[in-house]
Amino acid sequence: MRQSKLFAKTLREAPADEVSTNASLLIRAGFIDKVMAGVYSYLPLGLKVLEKVKEIVRQEMDKLGAQEILMPALHPKDNYLKTERWDKIDVLFKLDGASGSQYALGSTHEEIVTPLAKKFVSSYKDLPLSVYQIQDKFRNEPRAKSGLLRGREFSMKDLYSFHKDQEDLDNFYNKSKAAYLEVFKRCGLKAILVEASGGVFSKYSHEFQVATENGEDTVVVCSSCDFAQNREICELADNDMCPNCDSQVKVIKAIEVGNIFKLKDRFTKAFDFEYTDEEGRRQPVLMGCYGIGPSRVLGSVVEVHHDDKGIIWPKELTPFKAHLIILDESKKDEADKLYDQLTATGWQILYDDRQESAGVKLNDADLLGLTVQLIIGSKTNKSVEFKLRATGEVREVKYNKVEEELKKIYN
Amino acid sequence: MRQSKLFAKTLREAPADEVSTNASLLIRAGFIDKVMAGVYSYLPLGLKVLEKVKEIVRQEMDKLGAQEILMPALHPKDNYLKTERWDKIDVLFKLDGASGSQYALGSTHEEIVTPLAKKFVSSYKDLPLSVYQIQDKFRNEPRAKSGLLRGREFSMKDLYSFHKDQEDLDNFYNKSKAAYLEVFKRCGLKAILVEASGGVFSKYSHEFQVATENGEDTVVVCSSCDFAQNREICELADNDMCPNCDSQVKVIKAIEVGNIFKLKDRFTKAFDFEYTDEEGRRQPVLMGCYGIGPSRVLGSVVEVHHDDKGIIWPKELTPFKAHLIILDESKKDEADKLYDQLTATGWQILYDDRQESAGVKLNDADLLGLTVQLIIGSKTNKSVEFKLRATGEVREVKYNKVEEELKKIYN
Repeated sequence: MRQSKLFAKTLREAPADEVSTNASLLIRAGFIDKVMAGVYSYLPLGLKVLEKVKEIVRQEMDKLGAQEILMPALHPKDNYLKTERWDKIDVLFKLDGASGSQYALGSTHEEIVTPLAKKFVSSYKDLPLSVYQIQDKFRNEPRAKSGLLRGREFSMKDLYSFHKDQEDLDNFYNKSKAAYLEVFKRCGLKAILVEASGGVFSKYSHEFQVATENGEDTVVVCSSCDFAQNREICELADNDMCPNCDSQVKVIKAIEVGNIFKLKDRFTKAFDFEYTDEEGRRQPVLMGCYGIGPSRVLGSVVEVHHDDKGIIWPKELTPFKAHLIILDESKKDEADKLYDQLTATGWQILYDDRQESAGVKLNDADLLGLTVQLIIGSKTNKSVEFKLRATGEVREVKYNKVEEELKKIYN
Repeated sequence: MRQSKLFAKTLREAPADEVSTNASLLIRAGFIDKVMAGVYSYLPLGLKVLEKVKEIVRQEMDKLGAQEILMPALHPKDNYLKTERWDKIDVLFKLDGASGSQYALGSTHEEIVTPLAKKFVSSYKDLPLSVYQIQDKFRNEPRAKSGLLRGREFSMKDLYSFHKDQEDLDNFYNKSKAAYLEVFKRCGLKAILVEASGGVFSKYSHEFQVATENGEDTVVVCSSCDFAQNREICELADNDMCPNCDSQVKVIKAIEVGNIFKLKDRFTKAFDFEYTDEEGRRQPVLMGCYGIGPSRVLGSVVEVHHDDKGIIWPKELTPFKAHLIILDESKKDEADKLYDQLTATGWQILYDDRQESAGVKLNDADLLGLTVQLIIGSKTNKSVEFKLRATGEVREVKYNKVEEELKKIYN
């Protein structure tokens, strides 16, 4: 993509009405645009990253054996009366439909997926079953000041699993933990598995928390063992002794990027969702739910991976594999040729062909934060400065070796 | 995919509350599920087809030079006050947000894309610009009885273009016609380019209509030339003389699968969206909008391509490239091996490995409507019956030639 044609330009200054680091940087870099508090548009660069997050999530959910579906955002009120959540979900958007009907805008999909699964599951032979979707959720948040971390409208991957007994649910639940950690790792996030409230049905649910000072959550983590609990269920303070080992705990700020929850029969009971077991008896179906917010992951990545110059994308999420930057107009033909060669072999390249000063171009490149910069300046000779955004490391690489070097990074 | 594991089974009977052919067949075949009138869930098979439609649309929009973005469904009321549409769009869903604010659920995105484009366009050098999104729209339809043809929530590709003058808008508008016809052709639809009302700004807008008796639109088409007009702007009756040539016109029922519209300065004026021209003068930006509903396309394909046995997917939309069906359990090892070989080389195969009778399996295969069926029965010898769903044509093909035959169809 030639940058001269790219929709959305970088902004000189952070938007005045945006207090979050993630949205501020993403808006300045031209990745997103703010429509109102908690509601954003994704511009071409931002959409590319969002799609990469979604694709990673999709791959790991498929590996779990879950099948992708797509449920609607408009939900009938009746389903919420059955689960007694119409008045209990305080962030639920409600709206009036035709001829007196009322709808909710989905903030989660238990009220839709449970009756859906019930239609197709009758026997133990139909279990276990797991389905997921990647779809936009709506929450009427009273405060939405954290950019992509807490949206009124946001992307969500929600997975639901259905089981014949507790053991089967527990097995899947544990497998999901590994899948989740893999998703976050691939997105460049160190997620901590944190125990949180399990509600009235389970001792604990689990959250995946990413440590960052701008996080809205407070988490107690042990400095040496795996102990980690959300502050909401934990009385410990900084330097208290870990209940599992002799080390001290730390209290840190973190962003919740995912959560998993054993719902057991909380929703299946509300919809009379039972199956017939091996002996012909009717049994309650047990259920789990598992969420990851791709837009929140995107925001978290920016919170964690940036410096004072701009964003630093992990290689799996970089919107283009390389940012080709020409600083010396006399080398335009060479740069064009390199761009054509790389794109011809399938490399996604952002080519800064704009008539701007070297300073503007280099600053913009650091702000955009693509993993690799290929800089063609007055001093390079049939070569680029091959620069890694994360470390600032620069090496001179001959044009005909650029693809080889890119392969080393991306393979 | 092994059909024994596939989420959603075929239903013996059409759902009683579904009167449309498209939704009836899609529900029976396990492609979609009805949540309420005009609101559906996509099950794994349906989602695969929907994604294929979206991908075709995306490819043709990219060829047009349009850039993909993603705008939100939640819209601030203020933007509609500027365009004076808050009370004019009768299908607009409205909802109350936090602290007294009001939102609309997007039924179209002029109110969002116009101020967005304005932020980044200041000079003639920034024009033309075209952006599109594939996103879910909401319309509070009083009647929603046509399945996927008229949803309360539905998938939409909306493209918006911005131009410095009428000539540039006209050029892009004409190019979009060709792109649209290509989209429909690839989806297996014969779309007719039909003149429709242009509102107060243009003589005509254009609709893309697919002839089918279940269509909600009425269109007057000439039997020999290109003349075609929506009945809403046309006084002609069956067998009247075409105004362009000597032939007779026909009045037919059709489904509108796309429309394109020259908005000119209808919305740019409302948002004070001007640019500076080559002479430094401020000029109004002119605008066009271009819509295709992928979910409506999916429904239209089913309306047009089905028989009394079920759906007949065009090859570009078939959810799997082939449906492998084993009727003779003694050949299970052979069938497993063929399935493994084809999937190993990247072929997407649905493998009916269920313990069901031959009759059930063959009926289900015809109902699901995959383009190619590979039937392994008691009479085949190291070969499959290679059957085309559309024509019923059957040939015996040796196992080691199946891939070659599939390539002939899909390349």
